[in-house]
Amino acid sequence: MRLSRYFMPILKENPKEAEIVSHRLMLRAGMIRQQSQGIYSWLPLGKRILDKVNNIIREEQNRAGAIELSMPTLQSAELWQESGRYDAYGKEMLRIKDRQDRPMLYGPTNEEMVTDIFRSYVKSYKSLPLNLYHIQLKFRDEIRPRFGTMRSREFLMKDAYSFDLTKEDAVHSYNKMFAAYLRTFDRLGLRAIPMRADTGPIGGNHSHEFIILADTGESEVFSHRDFVNFDIPAADIDFDDVADMQAIFDKWTSVYAATSEMHDEAAFDAIPESDRLSARGIEVGHIFYFGTKYSEPMGAKVQGPDGKEHVVHMGSYGIGPTRLVPAIIEASHDENGIIWPASVAPFDVVVINMKAGDAACDAACEKIYAELSNAGKDVLYDDTDDRAGTKFATADLIGVPLQIIAGPRAVASGEVEVKDRKTGARETMTIDAAIKKLAG
Amino acid sequence: MRLSRYFMPILKENPKEAEIVSHRLMLRAGMIRQQSQGIYSWLPLGKRILDKVNNIIREEQNRAGAIELSMPTLQSAELWQESGRYDAYGKEMLRIKDRQDRPMLYGPTNEEMVTDIFRSYVKSYKSLPLNLYHIQLKFRDEIRPRFGTMRSREFLMKDAYSFDLTKEDAVHSYNKMFAAYLRTFDRLGLRAIPMRADTGPIGGNHSHEFIILADTGESEVFSHRDFVNFDIPAADIDFDDVADMQAIFDKWTSVYAATSEMHDEAAFDAIPESDRLSARGIEVGHIFYFGTKYSEPMGAKVQGPDGKEHVVHMGSYGIGPTRLVPAIIEASHDENGIIWPASVAPFDVVVINMKAGDAACDAACEKIYAELSNAGKDVLYDDTDDRAGTKFATADLIGVPLQIIAGPRAVASGEVEVKDRKTGARETMTIDAAIKKLAG
Repeated sequence: MRLSRYFMPILKENPKEAEIVSHRLMLRAGMIRQQSQGIYSWLPLGKRILDKVNNIIREEQNRAGAIELSMPTLQSAELWQESGRYDAYGKEMLRIKDRQDRPMLYGPTNEEMVTDIFRSYVKSYKSLPLNLYHIQLKFRDEIRPRFGTMRSREFLMKDAYSFDLTKEDAVHSYNKMFAAYLRTFDRLGLRAIPMRADTGPIGGNHSHEFIILADTGESEVFSHRDFVNFDIPAADIDFDDVADMQAIFDKWTSVYAATSEMHDEAAFDAIPESDRLSARGIEVGHIFYFGTKYSEPMGAKVQGPDGKEHVVHMGSYGIGPTRLVPAIIEASHDENGIIWPASVAPFDVVVINMKAGDAACDAACEKIYAELSNAGKDVLYDDTDDRAGTKFATADLIGVPLQIIAGPRAVASGEVEVKDRKTGARETMTIDAAIKKLAG
Repeated sequence: MRLSRYFMPILKENPKEAEIVSHRLMLRAGMIRQQSQGIYSWLPLGKRILDKVNNIIREEQNRAGAIELSMPTLQSAELWQESGRYDAYGKEMLRIKDRQDRPMLYGPTNEEMVTDIFRSYVKSYKSLPLNLYHIQLKFRDEIRPRFGTMRSREFLMKDAYSFDLTKEDAVHSYNKMFAAYLRTFDRLGLRAIPMRADTGPIGGNHSHEFIILADTGESEVFSHRDFVNFDIPAADIDFDDVADMQAIFDKWTSVYAATSEMHDEAAFDAIPESDRLSARGIEVGHIFYFGTKYSEPMGAKVQGPDGKEHVVHMGSYGIGPTRLVPAIIEASHDENGIIWPASVAPFDVVVINMKAGDAACDAACEKIYAELSNAGKDVLYDDTDDRAGTKFATADLIGVPLQIIAGPRAVASGEVEVKDRKTGARETMTIDAAIKKLAG
């Protein structure tokens, strides 16, 4: 992508409304724009990152056997009256009447709708286990949306829903999602700690939040330090292996971790003081086993191997991509801007032409841009006529992992500089060596 | 994907509510489910096809230089009061009040919001031309939603918006989208005819609808037969070449074509009778040049090369992916079901195990499934214990382009049958030959 033809509106000033660093950097880098209170556009740079986050989530859901569909944003009130949540959900639910005065709502979550889909089609235990997910917009009319897309009203959620014949099977489904979440956050460059959690309006009695430690987090959390060293499940784990999945769950829940709502001070105090971690955290995922809370009132049953009807056991599993993006920034930035993990970086490399219009610089940059693009790399080419200093600041701000800097003096000797955004390390090499290094 | 682990709820009976063939086949193939009037879930099979359609649209938008972002679904009423459309839009606009009683709406289109984004950031003609698009849910509260996702209330739309300094530049932007649309529909296996069209609530004075001919279409259309033979612009056309883009536009508008609203009977009658085409059609795209209709009242201006402020010239360009899917089915099906063009097929091939549980059949199918999957093909493996007849009917119904049929007798001689869904042609070959043929 040539920057001269891209739309990446960089802000020079720190926006006053941004209280936390991720919100500030997302605005400054031209990733998002607030359209109404708590409602954001994702500008092109932000959209690229959000897509990469979504794709990692999707790959790990698919790997764990979940199946993607797409449910609509608007739901009928009737469905929620069946489960009893229509009145219970409160003011966070955006209630709407259509032109025929039918009561509807903008889905804050989809337990009712997916249960309705299930009961319409699935009649036998032979179709189980089943886990259906979508990545879809939700709306929760927060009284105090803030921190940019960290706590917005219209937001994206990946929500998966599992259906099983028995509680034991449902626990296995829960453990599969638990393992998938560990892998997902790890691939996003995050160390997430699963913590026993309150279930809130979703309900149920078995629930974990996945928490990223960050000073700007809204939750107070308490855990053992050992989490930092736990191994992430490998890509080739067998999600069908009940014992293996249980072992992963057991390992990751073997030491203390809880949010403030579930905090047990006595248990925490029993940990040696040097191993206690008391910090603030950002919730980036939340999984629930809630048994028959929805399937019972909504009549979601299957015929079992015994020929009788059984109400299915369900769980739900949420990740917020539009919250993950700022969470990654909170975890990975410096005073100059964002430092993207390679897995979600909007571009693999930015080519900085320090003197656009200079024939040698232009030729060197065009060659690098063409060859790296042909090698399948996502390249941003800063071909604008901005000053070199502005270009360096922009490249650092938007956090692309690698920079190739082509200045007239170096190019005259057939060389460029390659800079690592994270370490700041710079290396001078020939143009061909730079292409070879970065195309790999 | 193993069918035994997939969620593809096939209906055996023809659903009574479906009036047109695409609606009937989408329901029967388990592609969609109506959740409320005119509001649909896309079940896993449908979602796969919709994603492929979206990706083709995206590739062609990007090729033409449009830049993707994502605007939210909910918009503030204030924006629409600025343009004057808030009162004018009528009952199709879903109006909403949030918990603080602020008037909002579910966007039926995004001219206002994108103009607001533009005016917030773009100050100079040097940033032009600019074309921003998103693929986002829209809501239009149709009085009579029908035909499944062909005319639904919540639907997906790709909407692009161009910004230019002058009318001449804007016409070039219009022509680029015109060419991109021709390519898009062609890649979807459709022959779309651009027709002079009424502009409706979007406004402006220069507009074309892209129409697919189909008996079940809602529009009455009139055109010259020559369209059938016009060449589609090649992938390597230069979208920056003003003359080339104008030539494509001129060619495709050189013979008569108009919807009933714009029909000129005298001009039509001047066509030799054997060349007149009077038919029904489905609108699958609509493009508009509307000049300063939004930029003027909303103050979207840039500094020109003359140092003065200029109100920008705009156009908008819509395609409905959730309508394109049924439109493709209307154009491509037979009495047994859907026939997907390869470009949007949910799977490249379906492997039919005629006798699941038979060791030789299982081994042959597993080998084919594994090797084709490793070759990067999307394979659906029907490993269920359904009867062979049911499997054949399902494979034909869902319209996967190629079928590999593994029955006990053929497999005993190391062979399988390869069937072309479209032609019905069957060919017996060795298992390795079938793999080699389909992996290519």
